[in-house]
Amino acid sequence: MLGVEFPICAFSHCRDVVAAVTNAGGLGVLGAVAHTPQRLETELTWIEEQTGGKPYGVDLLLPPKYVGADSGGIDGKQARELLPEKHRRFVDDLLTRYGIPVSSDEEQQPVADLNISPKGYEPLLDVVFSHRIRLIASALGSPPAELVTRAHAGDVLVAALAGTTHHARQHAAAGVDLIVAQGTEAGGHTGQVATMVLVPEVVDAMAPVPVLAAGGIARGRQIAAALALGAEGVWCGSVWLTTEEAETLPVVKDKFLAAGSSDTVRSRSLTGKPARMLRTAWTDEWERPDSPDPLGMPLQSALIGDPQRRINRAAAHADANARDLATYFVGQVVGSMNKVQPTASVVLEMVSEFIDTIGRLDDLVER
Amino acid sequence: MLGVEFPICAFSHCRDVVAAVTNAGGLGVLGAVAHTPQRLETELTWIEEQTGGKPYGVDLLLPPKYVGADSGGIDGKQARELLPEKHRRFVDDLLTRYGIPVSSDEEQQPVADLNISPKGYEPLLDVVFSHRIRLIASALGSPPAELVTRAHAGDVLVAALAGTTHHARQHAAAGVDLIVAQGTEAGGHTGQVATMVLVPEVVDAMAPVPVLAAGGIARGRQIAAALALGAEGVWCGSVWLTTEEAETLPVVKDKFLAAGSSDTVRSRSLTGKPARMLRTAWTDEWERPDSPDPLGMPLQSALIGDPQRRINRAAAHADANARDLATYFVGQVVGSMNKVQPTASVVLEMVSEFIDTIGRLDDLVER
Repeated sequence: MLGVEFPICAFSHCRDVVAAVTNAGGLGVLGAVAHTPQRLETELTWIEEQTGGKPYGVDLLLPPKYVGADSGGIDGKQARELLPEKHRRFVDDLLTRYGIPVSSDEEQQPVADLNISPKGYEPLLDVVFSHRIRLIASALGSPPAELVTRAHAGDVLVAALAGTTHHARQHAAAGVDLIVAQGTEAGGHTGQVATMVLVPEVVDAMAPVPVLAAGGIARGRQIAAALALGAEGVWCGSVWLTTEEAETLPVVKDKFLAAGSSDTVRSRSLTGKPARMLRTAWTDEWERPDSPDPLGMPLQSALIGDPQRRINRAAAHADANARDLATYFVGQVVGSMNKVQPTASVVLEMVSEFIDTIGRLDDLVER
Repeated sequence: MLGVEFPICAFSHCRDVVAAVTNAGGLGVLGAVAHTPQRLETELTWIEEQTGGKPYGVDLLLPPKYVGADSGGIDGKQARELLPEKHRRFVDDLLTRYGIPVSSDEEQQPVADLNISPKGYEPLLDVVFSHRIRLIASALGSPPAELVTRAHAGDVLVAALAGTTHHARQHAAAGVDLIVAQGTEAGGHTGQVATMVLVPEVVDAMAPVPVLAAGGIARGRQIAAALALGAEGVWCGSVWLTTEEAETLPVVKDKFLAAGSSDTVRSRSLTGKPARMLRTAWTDEWERPDSPDPLGMPLQSALIGDPQRRINRAAAHADANARDLATYFVGQVVGSMNKVQPTASVVLEMVSEFIDTIGRLDDLVER
């Protein structure tokens, strides 16, 4: 269906990872929600040059609920004008308490908008559909009818991530070709039901729509487990964040390499919707009883965009407080991400361990 | 090692389930923490009569931290004397608001104590070790050295449940023969790391100590997934709660049959330690911002013992408010527990689906 050798989809914001997974026999999927159309054009052209006709995909966020949904969406400037004084003060105070330097004038350009509304994502779709992608995925929300029609007209498959069977049913009704059933252990936006429970439930409810498993999958044993649960393949994101190719901030990459599986938390502090990330001083600050509730999407990312950039810049300069604060999306598999290696090696180790696992299971039954 | 045909351990408070699983080729394990020594003697004698020499086990709670740990433990009467006025008032007010009838004098006998301290569990151990059990398990905390010595002297295996690799290491240091790696999706006392991530991590860290997987396992596909992850077998609890044999309160059994996988919550409201249970008006009341924090173990169970009995009694008499409040420990697999069937049928369906799954996986690789 996907035209790949191994049923491994790799979500990454980094084009090098996308190309490397596709070249290794899987399907690289570029997370493009914060790209400008110009940058996306450049990235997709580069990926196609690197992968020579092999299949790859693109991923967007298409949430049904967000601030400004009634009017077709708001841009970053409008979002920043809507930020409550209380939230601005909370973040300013947080940065002051941790002694994070202010940005220079030059750095104070607006950070990238999240293109979650039609106004934002339609220009991206024009770029996407002018390229020969194999898959377009929605990591949040069911894809709109126009997107599905346009994709199918170009022989592009449509996938959507679901954290509940209810969401999977909505995606199927919207006409998707593939459901990605994502358990709570996943990095990024995620629900509360674990992969072990969610996958067979979605597989049974959605048959014959094929299901990929996501959440908690970083190695071959977990791929075998996902296929045992009834998935046709897997969707992995976190495991690529510590590859050689990943553009993960070095301080965050170091924290990922050192972290254990208990060191993540589901937090609304980066995007306004619950997303799993490394637990750090940043997430702790947002959990304090006197902290404000995070804002809705896209206001929260507008609120924390510049502060996050300040934190990451200071952390890169070895500022101890900034390093305490620095965080990023990652799943519970961070506990098994203990060394930096090439993306292609990760894929090949996954496949090798998967095959060994199937052999081990088969021996069990024959014994 | 366990002397069973199928590597399926079944935790249950109900002796009928324990005997039925053992007779079906698995290992029934009786949860005995709230038993008196007299009742435990009766139950174990009955199980042995029913199972004719087949292996079975017993499960206790041996938490390292609880109120009264310094003095070897407190009994239920002492616990009730230590209850803060604020907590008593919160529970009284809750029952009044929901119109739950008070217990009659006859019903106001103290509810069963949780035997979590040496004073409480040592008399139980005398009973346990006078029977021919195959396994003794600690569902919370590492077993004390005396317990391990006594078990091994009688050729009894010792197991302990772990929600983190850190706890698994402590259990191994205490001399356990088996680790049960239990993911967050499990019912009852549970941690935050999902089975998909926890099991391979514990397997790798503990080798060559054998590991059973728990959490999210109710059918053959999930057993195959657990074995793919590296477990030697599985430990299931929730799935037995809707069997014909289960003594689950009928109103709660009905709620389990109707519930989805998103309908559970980790709550301290029943025992004082985080445990997954059905989300109901009861758990919601304890989550309100103005609700008191639950007390430590065993004070919380002393606080809510009589109120829970009042709620369950009223719910059994079709009181609508009481039915809203009624809850019990259960994992996210509650979403797949949709019919009442004999325990033996559950075991046989598990095994059958497991064998089918292994065959399906094998075909995938050979294709």
